[in-house]
Amino acid sequence: MQRLLDIETRGSGLYEFTPRLQAWLREIGAGDGLCTLLVRHTSASLLIQENADAEVQTDLRGFFERLVPPADHPSMRFLRHTHEGPDDMPAHIKSALLPVSLGIPVLEGRMMLGTWQGVYLFEHRARPHRRQIALHFA
Amino acid sequence: MQRLLDIETRGSGLYEFTPRLQAWLREIGAGDGLCTLLVRHTSASLLIQENADAEVQTDLRGFFERLVPPADHPSMRFLRHTHEGPDDMPAHIKSALLPVSLGIPVLEGRMMLGTWQGVYLFEHRARPHRRQIALHFA
Amino acid sequence: MQRLLDIETRGSGLYEFTPRLQAWLREIGAGDGLCTLLVRHTSASLLIQENADAEVQTDLRGFFERLVPPADHPSMRFLRHTHEGPDDMPAHIKSALLPVSLGIPVLEGRMMLGTWQGVYLFEHRARPHRRQIALHFA
Repeated sequence: MQRLLDIETRGSGLYEFTPRLQAWLREIGAGDGLCTLLVRHTSASLLIQENADAEVQTDLRGFFERLVPPADHPSMRFLRHTHEGPDDMPAHIKSALLPVSLGIPVLEGRMMLGTWQGVYLFEHRARPHRRQIALHFA
Repeated sequence: MQRLLDIETRGSGLYEFTPRLQAWLREIGAGDGLCTLLVRHTSASLLIQENADAEVQTDLRGFFERLVPPADHPSMRFLRHTHEGPDDMPAHIKSALLPVSLGIPVLEGRMMLGTWQGVYLFEHRARPHRRQIALHFA
Repeated sequence: MQRLLDIETRGSGLYEFTPRLQAWLREIGAGDGLCTLLVRHTSASLLIQENADAEVQTDLRGFFERLVPPADHPSMRFLRHTHEGPDDMPAHIKSALLPVSLGIPVLEGRMMLGTWQGVYLFEHRARPHRRQIALHFA
């Protein structure tokens, strides 16, 4: 069972889609199995993170902005791939540091996530984008 | 085939559970297939690393402590989610940087790990915790 | 369906093997399913990245060289596991930061990668190595 999930982003940050994922599993009548996700981009990531306190998401974004600053930051002067804007190459680097694919066991139709875990798309580009995630269940 | 594996941790660091994983595969009579692991927490990680020299584990912990210092470190003043202690938000960040899920091919009941690879839980919190890993084999 | 894929490396950097992966899927007559990859080493990684502009690969390597410098760099003096050379422990750290396994949905024999995505081995050691990737399709 496969599907493409579209997510519209409006700037960098985390976009939760746990409910849409759960809805898809219900829709296909998923029982026991494995749900695999792949983000089809090299400037956005998948992430499983706490969905209780929104400040966790702000801090995550803050950390990665500091770890991988924009290409016009003095510490990033070594970058060569800069013609697509100062947020482009840092987005590729963040997409190497964060998950591109996730495997989530499913039991009786429910993802085996922990109590506080949600599934997110982490957008690394500044401009709005339409992102696509390939879903697989078996 | 699914199971929840509990791991008791006593402070941050790496806890190997390769033998327990292999024992579970034996127990269920696993032949050829795929073993998927998901850690059900946002402040601990999974990791496949060298199990020959224990100093590798000390150094890994040392590196991540420096890359993501406690919340009361001057470089981390930007953090907002600090009410659960100085090791909490850094634990969320480390859990974004390190694997939350792993897929390991299994051949004739044996995980296709390399000679020096072991499977670890990487605990990021200071206090003792009971951690849970969802296992899936198919 | 399983196979071991060998990749010869000549120094640190990215080595694309998307065509070999696609060829293997064709060879085994793969239809719909999931392709899982595991790198059997703790000093090399898997990576899905842009395969359009080669400068992206140079910059990725440049970033990780700066984030995790060689063991003889002043900032890395805390390392203990140094007897296998200055590029060894940093290689283990990079292998913790970058993917060790990948799950890629396959539809009608084709990997559901995005337009610009390629699959790479990221070698972290300086000397030539023969690297092995375990492939699984089901």
